[in-house]
Amino acid sequence: MLKRDYPTQYCSMAASLEIIGERWTILIVRDLFLGLRRFDDLQRNLGVARNILQSRLERLIEHGIVRKEQYQDRPARYEYRLTEKGIDLWPILISLLQWGDHYAIEGERPIVIEHKGCGGELDDRRRCLRCGADVSAREARAVRTGATRPAVEAAGPVQTAAPVEAAAPVEAAAPVEAAAPA
Amino acid sequence: MLKRDYPTQYCSMAASLEIIGERWTILIVRDLFLGLRRFDDLQRNLGVARNILQSRLERLIEHGIVRKEQYQDRPARYEYRLTEKGIDLWPILISLLQWGDHYAIEGERPIVIEHKGCGGELDDRRRCLRCGADVSAREARAVRTGATRPAVEAAGPVQTAAPVEAAAPVEAAAPVEAAAPA
Repeated sequence: MLKRDYPTQYCSMAASLEIIGERWTILIVRDLFLGLRRFDDLQRNLGVARNILQSRLERLIEHGIVRKEQYQDRPARYEYRLTEKGIDLWPILISLLQWGDHYAIEGERPIVIEHKGCGGELDDRRRCLRCGADVSAREARAVRTGATRPAVEAAGPVQTAAPVEAAAPVEAAAPVEAAAPA
Repeated sequence: MLKRDYPTQYCSMAASLEIIGERWTILIVRDLFLGLRRFDDLQRNLGVARNILQSRLERLIEHGIVRKEQYQDRPARYEYRLTEKGIDLWPILISLLQWGDHYAIEGERPIVIEHKGCGGELDDRRRCLRCGADVSAREARAVRTGATRPAVEAAGPVQTAAPVEAAAPVEAAAPVEAAAPA
């Protein structure tokens, strides 16, 4: 039985957060939307400890948001894909992305969401700004702009955090999270 | 300096989550949308430890999402209100609510969002299903349906969690969260 994060709250938002509100979970879903499917690719792109990624994926599977599919025998290898329930998280991700574009990052947006049909961008109601269509997750694509973290930040505290992408520090941080799953 | 939750991620979604992804933060914003403004009202409705509520509110103020306003002298009393940046979180909340209505709760929805103008409900793009208007946060109202947690659940583990709404247990849980802010 999973612990209830918000036992006093009978509310659909709280209920959603109980499922997808754990640290890293939304970013795992994001990466699945971006087309990553394999554990090692997810792990590399996220820079998250393997045990955390594993436990988050298991929870997503348990909730029917992600399914695990074998794509190879001997050795057995699996990939992870979003179910319909997972794809329906798209509006949440888009609204987080758009708020972040506006308020949480400086400089150019790292990713732009486009309508596949005509290449138009999406407005805040996920309608194509070029052709006016209501765009669904499957009709949209994420285009990387090539923007990187602004230099001011890169020279500061972020620089020191860079080795995290290598090896030891991430694993070293794992027991903390494992001991106190927020 | 705030610690970076996702140091390897240059992404607007991750940047949003660094600001609003902490446990309780979204529910505090929800309660401000629902019209709660005072610390004690928020604390009572959320059933969250006072020190956690305090630290979350401080962070929201620091990020310009919430402002604190004095409404009384001697003794000085304050209330909390969303700024424009805070009100712009509305699409995130609505998408969490709608996904939760669909997938995360059973039975009747506890809250329905209506267009103030005509009483129509909102679709998944926050358009009025009755009159077709694009509805903004200020043009919408939340209507409680009176639905409560289904009895099956209430008889189970939730029942044991009920005393949380009273006094001691919440405060007792505080040091855990304080020691390990996820």
